[in-house]
Order: sequence, then C-alpha cells, then structure tokens
Amino acid sequence: MSEGRFSAADHGYMAQALRLAARGLYTTDPNPRVGCVLVRDGAVVGEGWHERAGEPHAEVNALRAAGADARGATCYVTLEPCAHHGLTPPCAEALVSAGVARVVAAMEDPNPAVAGQGLARLRAAGIAVEHGLLADQAEALNPGFLKRMRGGRPYVRCKLAMSLDGRTAMASGESQWITGPEARRDVQRLRARSSAILTGAGTVLADDPSFTVRAAELGEGEPAGGLRQPLRVVVDPHLSTPPTARMLSLPGSTLILTTSDDTAEADALLAAGAEVARLPGTPDTVDLDAVLELLGQRGMNEVHLETGATLAGAMLRAGLVDELVVYMAPLLLGDGARGLFHLPGLASMADRVELEIVDLRAVGRDWRISARVATRSAAAQS
Amino acid sequence: MSEGRFSAADHGYMAQALRLAARGLYTTDPNPRVGCVLVRDGAVVGEGWHERAGEPHAEVNALRAAGADARGATCYVTLEPCAHHGLTPPCAEALVSAGVARVVAAMEDPNPAVAGQGLARLRAAGIAVEHGLLADQAEALNPGFLKRMRGGRPYVRCKLAMSLDGRTAMASGESQWITGPEARRDVQRLRARSSAILTGAGTVLADDPSFTVRAAELGEGEPAGGLRQPLRVVVDPHLSTPPTARMLSLPGSTLILTTSDDTAEADALLAAGAEVARLPGTPDTVDLDAVLELLGQRGMNEVHLETGATLAGAMLRAGLVDELVVYMAPLLLGDGARGLFHLPGLASMADRVELEIVDLRAVGRDWRISARVATRSAAAQS
Repeated sequence: MSEGRFSAADHGYMAQALRLAARGLYTTDPNPRVGCVLVRDGAVVGEGWHERAGEPHAEVNALRAAGADARGATCYVTLEPCAHHGLTPPCAEALVSAGVARVVAAMEDPNPAVAGQGLARLRAAGIAVEHGLLADQAEALNPGFLKRMRGGRPYVRCKLAMSLDGRTAMASGESQWITGPEARRDVQRLRARSSAILTGAGTVLADDPSFTVRAAELGEGEPAGGLRQPLRVVVDPHLSTPPTARMLSLPGSTLILTTSDDTAEADALLAAGAEVARLPGTPDTVDLDAVLELLGQRGMNEVHLETGATLAGAMLRAGLVDELVVYMAPLLLGDGARGLFHLPGLASMADRVELEIVDLRAVGRDWRISARVATRSAAAQS
Repeated sequence: MSEGRFSAADHGYMAQALRLAARGLYTTDPNPRVGCVLVRDGAVVGEGWHERAGEPHAEVNALRAAGADARGATCYVTLEPCAHHGLTPPCAEALVSAGVARVVAAMEDPNPAVAGQGLARLRAAGIAVEHGLLADQAEALNPGFLKRMRGGRPYVRCKLAMSLDGRTAMASGESQWITGPEARRDVQRLRARSSAILTGAGTVLADDPSFTVRAAELGEGEPAGGLRQPLRVVVDPHLSTPPTARMLSLPGSTLILTTSDDTAEADALLAAGAEVARLPGTPDTVDLDAVLELLGQRGMNEVHLETGATLAGAMLRAGLVDELVVYMAPLLLGDGARGLFHLPGLASMADRVELEIVDLRAVGRDWRISARVATRSAAAQS
C-alpha cells in the first residue's frame, strides 16, 4: 500500500513505535522486536514494546499503560497483531476488548500463525485497519524473524575485519587488533542481536574464541533480566573442536555440527558441555544448507557468521550470506597476508559476487561497510 | 600564525581566492595554482588566477582587472607573491606599483627564489602584510609544488581500483571494468592534475595502457588552450617496453627509466618516440629514490602512480607514496585474485603500513577512499 494516505502525525507515531521496538533488539529472540503506541485525541495514552519471549507483547504493554484511555484510541504497531494463542493470549482480541477505534500496522506478519488473520480479526470487530506505514523500517527491525517466517531459514550476517587492502590476518595467522576498540564494541552489538554465532572448527582451533556477549564491551548497559548469550554453533566435520575449547566453559550453549560418527570424540564434547548434531555432508564438509535448515528449525532468526576465509567463502558461494558487515582498518598488510573469502571456483570477472553497499560509516578510526549480497550472485553460483 | 585575528570578511575573500586558484588545477604545471582577489571599500575590484606557465600570475591578472581601483585595496592571494624575475616580472613589485594598501597571503612560498622575500619586499614598501589565513587549504591546492620546493621530490599519489575484498584483477590478469564509469571519470581528473603518470613495464606489457587524459571523459570540458598531457614515465629495468606500445603513438611524451645498457633496445624505443634515461639500480630494479629525484629535477609536482602490485608495493615500502586513492567496487573477487600491494618482507602485524583516511565518498556505485600514508610506516620500513 502507498504511504501517501497516512498523515504526518501517523508517520510520527509509527516512528515512535519503531524506536520502542528497537529497545527489544537484544532480548526478544526468538520473537520479533515490536513496538506499539496508543494515541487518543492527539495525545499518547500508552506505549509499550515486547521485551522477552513469554512476556507480554508490545500491544498488551501499551494497553496496560493506557488503561481506560485505550477506548477510541488509534493503535500504531510495528507488526500485525497476533491472532493466535502462543505463550500469551492473542493481541488482536486484547485490542478489540479494549475498544480501540483504529489500528495502523507497519506491516503484516508473515508468521503462518498470523499472516493477515490478526488484521482480519480486528476488521471483523469493526475496527478501522490499515497497514504499510514505514514498512521498510519495520522490515529492517526483524530481518531474521521475517526471513525465517517466510522460508524457514535464518538471516545470515557475515562479520569481517580487514585492512584497507582486504586482509584479515598475517600469513602466520596473527590477527589480533586489526581493528580498534570502537569496532570491537560494535561487533559486540552485532553478536548481542543475533540468535546464534556461527563459526568453523578452524577458527576454534586457531583462535580459541569466546564468542560471548560481554556487557562491559556492549557500551549500552546490560538489559534488564541479563544478557542473552547467542547459541555458539561450530561447523566441524571432523569433530576437531577440543573439549578444552574456551567457549565450552563459558555462559551460553555450544552446538557442534558434524558429519563424523566418531562417538568417542562426540562423547568427550558432550561431557565438556557441548551439544553435538550429525548432519548430511561429506567427511570433509558439512552440508551448509542443512546447517541453516537446522538453525531455522531451532528458531534462530539472525545468525552472526564470524569465521575464516574457507567457511565464509563456502557460505558465500552457496548463496547463504544475506549481509556483509566489514570493518576496514586504515592499514595495509600486503599480498602475503590472508584474504577475506576463499572462492576457489572463481576465475573470471563474470563470476564475481555483486554487492550493494547500504551503509558506510566511521567507527572510531575504522570504517564499517554494510553490504547486501545481490541475489544474482547466489543464482549465478548455484 | 593564528587565523583568529582575521575577520569573517577576510576568510570569505580568501576562500574566493582559493576557488579561483583551483581553476588552474589542470593547467598551471609546473607552476603552482594561485588565486587572487582585490577588495576596496568592501567590494571586489579585481580577481584573477594563474592559468599557465609563461602567462601572468594571479596577482597580475587581478591588478589588470582592477585597474586604478587597486590603489588602496586589500590583496588576498593564496600564495606569497613572487619577488624574483622568472618568466614574468615579480608580482611584489607590481602590487607596490599599483598602490595596494594591505596584502593577505594564505601561506609563504617555500620556493627558494621567494621564501619570504616577496612579503619582505611588500613590507619594505610600507604595505600591511599578513599571512596564515586558510593556510591548510592553500597547502592542499599544491601538494606537489610545495613538496618539490621543500625537498626536491614530487608528491606521489597512488591510484588503485579494487573489489571490496581488496583485489585488483583476476589471477589471469583480467581486470577490465572493476569500477564503474563515474570512477573512471574521476581517475581522469586525477591524471589531468598530475605532472607525470608513473607505471611499470609489467603494466605496459599486460595492459598496453594509453595513460592519456581524455577531455570527453574528464567531464568538465576542455580547458582553454587544450589539455596538457602528463609525462608518461615507465620504470623498465630490462627495457621490455615494446616500441609498438600504444602510449608511444599518442599525444604527449613518454620517458623510460632503465638500468639496462642495451643500446639496440634503447634505440628502438627512441625511434618510436620515447625518451630513455639510465638510472642507478640493479639489472632487475631501478632505484626508486633516483626515479623521484629525477622527476623532481624535471619539475614534476604531482606524480600519479598507476601500476601493478609489485611496483606499487616497492614504492610503498620505500616510503615514497604520499597518498592512496582507492576506488572500491561493490563486488567480491575472492582470494585467488590479485592483491593491491606486493609487500614481500611484511610478515608481522608490527610491520603493517599505517594509513590515515582523509576522505571517503561515493563515486557512482563505487566508493573512493583517500588516505595519507603515515610517516611512521616509511620510517619503520627504511
């Protein structure tokens, strides 16, 4: 629908609802981030956002804040109100009971359990219903949830840190502190919003990373209720992750995905606290489509890919990366150093992977480049 | 000197003089770009800029425009007026004769033939003289002229075109059209402002480039008096440039710098229209310090380095690159493709080359990154 038929006031209230939704950036997982504003007679009478799965949805929080003032109000909500009984009762019913006069949703909910039924329920109760206001912004709030609802797969954001000449580490593997402290804090924010952090066994062996979200580095204070640790997922065909790996002793869970049937190695990892799952593939490779299918089935919305050139290149070539976030440091490491993406089959310019740079900004002394991977490339490489 | 003692009007007129100076960007070589504004009773009575060596300097053009109105005026000029007889008479004398009351120079001229004598001559005539207003901007107009006057060497700007993952060409050498038409037009502007275009014999053999400035691609119309073609300079230890190389048949001159004493090859190149000069070095390398000394002696201000990873890397490691201009295309070529800089001795992060990114902007679908090479790196690598 066109946005032209909405008033300036409509735009302002929806923008406010979007800002409220963003407060749940780190906490709503696996639910979407949703914000809601109730307005009556030109005044906000209630606002709310969804904070955590199992707790009230944005609409219910806003209705509670408004109390009797919700009667006759307009409800601005960033996602279609739910019509189904989940962990909480349906929001569409709550809006009907509260007697709101009009509901403006930024977008419909592609969740098959909702998918237009929320709006239909409201309309059936005689409420004026519209949608499509600031829909792009609402979409951008929940790339993972929406992609998973539409196709079962999570949204994959590949994070890289490189020198200006596109190098991630010296040939020796030495890579510490390519980027500055501001960029590292920014990475914490990317991790914190993700459902899972995906890496390869090579990275675990080389760097023994923690892959935890650390409140002190997040730079935004710890959310009420504590930090949610994303699931750590290791693609590890040979089960070469050592049971002594640092991430296994840290808060949060680790899932190891393998094609190996070595039960002794699997048992040692289980004893160390990891979960081990077998997936299709070859002895040397785990099927990456199967990895994303599994993560989608487990309710993972945004997957943060932080790994070496081999797995990053394989994910890219398989068309499984949605977005790149590249931190570019103002230094040169030379052509003896390691590259970003191992793309062995790419020999001609015609095979290049096209990107669309959607954002580029300074982060401390480094620059952050955000790019979408063009659909064409995924098709061209299949 | 502090800029604080200058008025807002002073700043405005000097900014105008700087804009006038920039009109000579492509034409003044080997002279500096200079602009001049004459102001009397709060009104501009004359303005001028230096257009071409052998033609009048900025001050003389402004004085001619002002005529008798120059008497009692303030002269804003982007570089100290000259005090010596060069191809034209000294501007300081002309300002004295015209009876200007005050001269504000953005900066002193480091040219040993001037170096404060211009300002001294004006003061001796009773004119109020100040300098240091918008000096950084004046400096930025003439990085090559000023560096050459201070130390005899030209300013080297290294231009590169790369994919987001830092690759300039496929392993096969295929490299056409990494960047888009807007970036290529921008490169024409970089070439047009340069005194010389420096490359290596490997690039000549691989790409047979023209390295001409083409008015149609410059996107700014041809300057009056026609386009000046920068000197093309090929570092060619083995004299492997073929006499049939395209650049030898195009407008402008080509200088081939070698350590070879093969007179037959040199004669063939001379017959094809090239100049050949022998420099110190080894059979496989030309001494790059000697290259820049020679270019400085020949009055080259800005040198545009457009070459492959080997020569670019050698120039960088020798501390001879002042600025990088990198055009980054939104695509990925993978780690099998060619890198920007061949830096064979660089094995540890401690050896990294530090940059300072001074400008970053969209150029069509590509991004242009301008960076200064930090002095530290040159020192660390010597």
